[in-house]
Amino acid sequence: MEYKFSAPVADLKPSAIREILKFTSMPGYIPFAAGNPAPEALPTETVAKITADIMLNRPVDALQYSVTEGYVPLRNHLKEYMKQKHNIGREFDELIITTGAQQVMNLATMVLCNRGDTIICENPSFIGSLNAFRSFGVNLVGVDIDFDGMNIEKLEAALKANPDARFIYTIPTFQNPSGCCMSVEKRKAVYALAKKYGVLILEDNPYSDTRFRGEELPTIKSMDEDGIVIYAGTFSKVISPGLRVGFTVAPAAIVQKMVVCKQTSDVHTNILGQLICHDFMTKYDYEAHLDRNREVYRKKCDLMCGLIDEHIGQYVEYVRPEGGLFVWLKLPETVDMVGFCTEAVNNKVATVPGTAFCADTTATSQSFRMNYSTPTDEQIVKGMEILGKVAKDYLK
Amino acid sequence: MEYKFSAPVADLKPSAIREILKFTSMPGYIPFAAGNPAPEALPTETVAKITADIMLNRPVDALQYSVTEGYVPLRNHLKEYMKQKHNIGREFDELIITTGAQQVMNLATMVLCNRGDTIICENPSFIGSLNAFRSFGVNLVGVDIDFDGMNIEKLEAALKANPDARFIYTIPTFQNPSGCCMSVEKRKAVYALAKKYGVLILEDNPYSDTRFRGEELPTIKSMDEDGIVIYAGTFSKVISPGLRVGFTVAPAAIVQKMVVCKQTSDVHTNILGQLICHDFMTKYDYEAHLDRNREVYRKKCDLMCGLIDEHIGQYVEYVRPEGGLFVWLKLPETVDMVGFCTEAVNNKVATVPGTAFCADTTATSQSFRMNYSTPTDEQIVKGMEILGKVAKDYLK
Repeated sequence: MEYKFSAPVADLKPSAIREILKFTSMPGYIPFAAGNPAPEALPTETVAKITADIMLNRPVDALQYSVTEGYVPLRNHLKEYMKQKHNIGREFDELIITTGAQQVMNLATMVLCNRGDTIICENPSFIGSLNAFRSFGVNLVGVDIDFDGMNIEKLEAALKANPDARFIYTIPTFQNPSGCCMSVEKRKAVYALAKKYGVLILEDNPYSDTRFRGEELPTIKSMDEDGIVIYAGTFSKVISPGLRVGFTVAPAAIVQKMVVCKQTSDVHTNILGQLICHDFMTKYDYEAHLDRNREVYRKKCDLMCGLIDEHIGQYVEYVRPEGGLFVWLKLPETVDMVGFCTEAVNNKVATVPGTAFCADTTATSQSFRMNYSTPTDEQIVKGMEILGKVAKDYLK
Repeated sequence: MEYKFSAPVADLKPSAIREILKFTSMPGYIPFAAGNPAPEALPTETVAKITADIMLNRPVDALQYSVTEGYVPLRNHLKEYMKQKHNIGREFDELIITTGAQQVMNLATMVLCNRGDTIICENPSFIGSLNAFRSFGVNLVGVDIDFDGMNIEKLEAALKANPDARFIYTIPTFQNPSGCCMSVEKRKAVYALAKKYGVLILEDNPYSDTRFRGEELPTIKSMDEDGIVIYAGTFSKVISPGLRVGFTVAPAAIVQKMVVCKQTSDVHTNILGQLICHDFMTKYDYEAHLDRNREVYRKKCDLMCGLIDEHIGQYVEYVRPEGGLFVWLKLPETVDMVGFCTEAVNNKVATVPGTAFCADTTATSQSFRMNYSTPTDEQIVKGMEILGKVAKDYLK
């Protein structure tokens, strides 16, 4: 039988990153293409204790159906935590638990966008989100980013050209893939422009709790007095991605629609994972855990960056990250970036070609992304040696 | 700010059942409206042992990112199990893990339907699925069901009137809400008609493993030699709904597109839940567990049905279930069904009015649904006494 697919899905390709991930989970490949938290950063002992306690004292709570909005004590704790620590959440906002932050991208698009609508995004940007948008048949308009985030002139031009854009998608802190942080001035400017043009903002913030250097920057959501920002948070980078627990803080009217769509998507987020995150935040020293994580990432980042400087420093430009999981490296204009990455994979070092992150799938890129959290220190050392040789041969 | 929602979502209402569920989780209400597995049927001790073992011996596997298609050993085991036990799965099929069977409804619609497309469904049918379809702006065409499943003449008329229908949605075994089982002859007829008209079938089968009486019936998927059936299965009714682990067996070309959409929806299903289901099926006596469950449901069903006969038997028609979680009761044509259910809720007994399950949201119904798995035996006794009094007053 010839199967006929829905229009947006017919043309959608699997995420290049996840395809590469499969490829590079084969033994022998150095996984600089991945985006996993470092295994040593996963709080396995604490989660083991929490899980044993839950299964002993309240097993039915962990296994029974729950409500779509999420486990109420976790929602209440997060509301308070986000308010106190990050000034996120106003009277008009609501917070619900989602199946990872990825589901926020899915639900926001489902709720706000008809096929053919426009979403403005950073260019490059996280392919998982871009594909979530594409899966609803929307039109992506990319705004180039400078070292300090979205180019504001280009953003305003995009807003003028697309007055009906449904929202601006941004990862202001440790942007994926570029690793850059949007300056406070630009955060204010993005907010002001969104307000001026009557466009919502979808702020994706998976990485800010991994910051291991520099000053914390205010989220755009913390500036939201007008109910125009949908904020996506997650436990994936700080407790566990495998549990699939994220959340959104957004105007209640929008959240209400997201709940209806979440109900029809997966009924609710797995409740055992929600209980684990709740107990972790309320019964253990969550802040101390975040600090330990930061130390893991600082060391791995410094290790990789030192070796980048040593082995391929003469060929690449990059900004040393202050958090997040990635380094974004730019090759000279004369170099065939995809050719270089292919040569690296042929030598069993997997990186992600920058083209994977372009809003326009036909665009080119001189950059590639490397991850320092997934590989072991030994793999980082070995992989960078290999990349050094590949660069010497390929770029000579 | 005035928020503008996508066209299908703007009109979508929250599931009446989940709204009632919230209402009836308040203390003092008898939860005949719910659909939870009986707490005593949840295998809490086994899951506690399995979870402890996982967190001791392979905690990183339980917390790290996994692949979108699902945990490979669970997929492989399920493929073999479904093939051997249920003759489900051919060379052209593939099996992936989903976030509950609910996600199969979401993904199938996302992959196959454009806004305005038609889905043919049983009338009445499971509101969670109907709302999943509605959330993509499809047009639902309901086919009335007889005591032995879909009316075949009406199905053919619906197919003739809607030659471009994308699929036929059916719950052939212990249909929700009606509780009826489609006869083998009708299963064959539905398959033959789907094939004749070039329309796919989405077969939802959450309840067949709860059968506590009567002969097992072959699934429609087991007849699928043409690659036209998408099958949805789940662990929700047999291990735990809270873990949100389901699966689909469907033609590989369709599954491939579902994987792309799952990637953008929630990346993957929580891996701890997948590991638990895998270990349960492979390291413990899963069949003995299913038998214990059946016994729990048989007793609760018989208790409720006996009390229905005693207290309201003179007012209602119903078929005694051989499995599933629900009894579907029909009031005389002269009775205002919604008024009766409202009077029951006023007396703290929550049932679900049949109108909630109609494909056409403006249709009327003489039936209401009662669940025997959620309430305790004491609640069943008390609730039925109350319903008897309500009936006597209201229907006199």
